[in-house]
Amino acid sequence: MSLDRRIDTALHQAISGAQGPLVPPQLGAALPYAVFPGGARIRPTILLSVAQACGDDRPEIADSAAAALELIHCASLVHDDLPAFDDADLRRGKPTLHRAFGEPLAVLAGDSLIVLAFDVLARAGGAAPDRALRLVSTLARRTGSPFGICAGQAWEAEPQVNLSAYHQAKTGALFIAATQMGAIAAGHDPEPWEDLGARIGEAFQVADDLKDALETSETTGKPSGQDAAHQRPSAVQSMGVEGAVRYMKDILGGAIASIPSCPGEARLAQMVLAYARKMTEMPVSVAGK
Amino acid sequence: MSLDRRIDTALHQAISGAQGPLVPPQLGAALPYAVFPGGARIRPTILLSVAQACGDDRPEIADSAAAALELIHCASLVHDDLPAFDDADLRRGKPTLHRAFGEPLAVLAGDSLIVLAFDVLARAGGAAPDRALRLVSTLARRTGSPFGICAGQAWEAEPQVNLSAYHQAKTGALFIAATQMGAIAAGHDPEPWEDLGARIGEAFQVADDLKDALETSETTGKPSGQDAAHQRPSAVQSMGVEGAVRYMKDILGGAIASIPSCPGEARLAQMVLAYARKMTEMPVSVAGK
Repeated sequence: MSLDRRIDTALHQAISGAQGPLVPPQLGAALPYAVFPGGARIRPTILLSVAQACGDDRPEIADSAAAALELIHCASLVHDDLPAFDDADLRRGKPTLHRAFGEPLAVLAGDSLIVLAFDVLARAGGAAPDRALRLVSTLARRTGSPFGICAGQAWEAEPQVNLSAYHQAKTGALFIAATQMGAIAAGHDPEPWEDLGARIGEAFQVADDLKDALETSETTGKPSGQDAAHQRPSAVQSMGVEGAVRYMKDILGGAIASIPSCPGEARLAQMVLAYARKMTEMPVSVAGK
Repeated sequence: MSLDRRIDTALHQAISGAQGPLVPPQLGAALPYAVFPGGARIRPTILLSVAQACGDDRPEIADSAAAALELIHCASLVHDDLPAFDDADLRRGKPTLHRAFGEPLAVLAGDSLIVLAFDVLARAGGAAPDRALRLVSTLARRTGSPFGICAGQAWEAEPQVNLSAYHQAKTGALFIAATQMGAIAAGHDPEPWEDLGARIGEAFQVADDLKDALETSETTGKPSGQDAAHQRPSAVQSMGVEGAVRYMKDILGGAIASIPSCPGEARLAQMVLAYARKMTEMPVSVAGK
């Protein structure tokens, strides 16, 4: 089965676990609305790729881990879109959850998805409770405080920001979770995998900065996009487009070099390389227009 | 060590796990603000009482379970107080979290506390991963959808409410979690403990209805309180004060009868009886004024 298919199946299974005849109808509708159709599913794809590189001896646990990680990501999008944060109208081409269902449902759907992520891990753990428990612990660490995306988002409310802690927690955390949870699901030590996740996360952040700066200048003619408008720190702002692209290539080169020794090391390196090409070509071609 | 002391120590330990030099300062302050000083800590007290009745052979796991359950309760208070729900100004005698720290921090603190609850369970599981995993699963079931407090709260956004599902999920869920998690922490089967939790939760709901109706009539002279104002279903509304008190006594009698056979059965029955007296005397004395 392809990775996309495995992720989609695991997510459908997870969401069905939160349904039932006793679910309040709007919450029952809001949960799949937050999760389907998805974006690129990049975090669970990395998770499963690492699991495969490590032998993937318990694919059902890897699938549950992938679903749990994506559920947390979806929950974070729902809460980040709320009026108190980005006050966004659109997400993945349709109205944001609070626009479609109202703010109370958006808070509760986000909460429910966070809880569901841990539920999914616990349910998968019957055959290998040690792995499941490490997965719970790793996902919690990269979701909550002080190292997770909650802390990352909370930095945006601070007058003075620790930039390195902010980026690592806001964007890096779930990529670190992806590589480490992939290793854990396949029975490997997660520690050596932190570096790869952190580097992919950093590259993703730079790619996002480039996309924000370039797409906006393309479509609106304004010199800069949302990062500049919200005064968010951006790689493009500090080193220009060419510099940011070069920087991203360096990071991804380092990411490949950081892949721990494992049975599927070569194939995983190719996957990161493919991502690297995709990420670096996109903004360069846009910039060349 | 007294139960109060055990709960307080476990909660302080849990909250310190979400701190550190890299925590965004406001989030670092908001998390203990949401948890200390506490209310009656009734859910973790029930949890530890059941664990003791079952032998309490791993008190460190029971303590973690108690802390995790109370963290979820505190998270639910923070989110329920938000402008999108109750828009409350005060909680436990001080400004609600969103009034003190702003709405973004209140959403994020609630999220972080939910995550922390599962983290605490995972960390405690080293010595007994099976118990820890069952605790994660049970707490998730009674927090999320369709059987948890998220679903309970989501019923309030529905035009037509399934009253039994609403009460069971909104109030009952964390009491069921309390009795079942106490049993699990001590290595006992949680199934026979569901009934006791559900009955205590039901009694608590009736006591709350009585408190709402009577305290308001006492202090404001109005015929009814918040339940009536928000058109929430209430036992007092449907059976009057005398009827509701009688009903609560019946429920608590049933609760005592439902205690599963265990080493500390008699002591636990006394505890429930003590609660029953406390709960039934309060409104009767108020009503007698």
